[in-house]
Amino acid sequence: MDINLIVAIIRRDKLEEVEKKLQDIGVERITVSKVKGYGEYHDFFARNWMVEEVRVEIFTRKDEVETITAAIMDAAHTGLPGDGVVAVVPIEKFFLIRTRSVATPQEFWPRSRS
Amino acid sequence: MDINLIVAIIRRDKLEEVEKKLQDIGVERITVSKVKGYGEYHDFFARNWMVEEVRVEIFTRKDEVETITAAIMDAAHTGLPGDGVVAVVPIEKFFLIRTRSVATPQEFWPRSRS
Amino acid sequence: MDINLIVAIIRRDKLEEVEKKLQDIGVERITVSKVKGYGEYHDFFARNWMVEEVRVEIFTRKDEVETITAAIMDAAHTGLPGDGVVAVVPIEKFFLIRTRSVATPQEFWPRSRS
Repeated sequence: MDINLIVAIIRRDKLEEVEKKLQDIGVERITVSKVKGYGEYHDFFARNWMVEEVRVEIFTRKDEVETITAAIMDAAHTGLPGDGVVAVVPIEKFFLIRTRSVATPQEFWPRSRS
Repeated sequence: MDINLIVAIIRRDKLEEVEKKLQDIGVERITVSKVKGYGEYHDFFARNWMVEEVRVEIFTRKDEVETITAAIMDAAHTGLPGDGVVAVVPIEKFFLIRTRSVATPQEFWPRSRS
Repeated sequence: MDINLIVAIIRRDKLEEVEKKLQDIGVERITVSKVKGYGEYHDFFARNWMVEEVRVEIFTRKDEVETITAAIMDAAHTGLPGDGVVAVVPIEKFFLIRTRSVATPQEFWPRSRS
């Protein structure tokens, strides 16, 4: 299908920058949740290795995936371990509840730029 | 595989109706988490555009996907911007921890109706 | 792609055992969030049927999926209803924010064992 789900796990203190960047490029729907994680920077001998992170989900047209993942990486990047990851998940079907119907890419992504 | 993951992002005040509807059609396992999101209704000039939403996950047999997505849309629908979305994600493998084995669709979905 | 996302919904009081087991086999990044769920053990006539569970996400090389799902099931298993589930989701693309580039399996999974 021509819709993907982008999942990003980022530093909590980078959320505002990522949101700002996504707005700038016209991303009109994101979902955010608080998570805990450990990663490259882990110290398994400490008991307090879990750090607070943010999980960002974006459903988007496939032809926007590259732009959005690049924007997230730009905004969330520090270059240090613990910067997090971005993954692209396939979607088989996608519906808007407001219209109770399958979202067309046009409907789904009424671009503010362009 | 014959199992899918359904992910719905809905209004928080519609959760109870959605849960009730899913019980009515025999859905026996759901997972719910609180999230924040912005969507069609966003006002980027306000700083308080993030609204509280609920993320619902349901693992289900593929032949039940249509019934379940329709039920969610019926129960979560208001017709206004901000109603949310429903997405269907492919699953490659699915296990029940209780039996420590691959779930057969029969095992996975012991329908209460029928 | 040669990367998968493993999603496990487990008992909250099994999280520590699951984390320990995953460390033992060299899993170097997990993401954890609190969720509520109902499942096989539900009692729909009670209003308090939602139980607290934990959602664990692991991005991993495809050739590690079997080892990791088995480890989760071993550590999270009680044999009673409510043990939860493990699902394997396909991933189309995967990036490390620290390097701002596609993660190679080698980079992504710098095994501590071997």
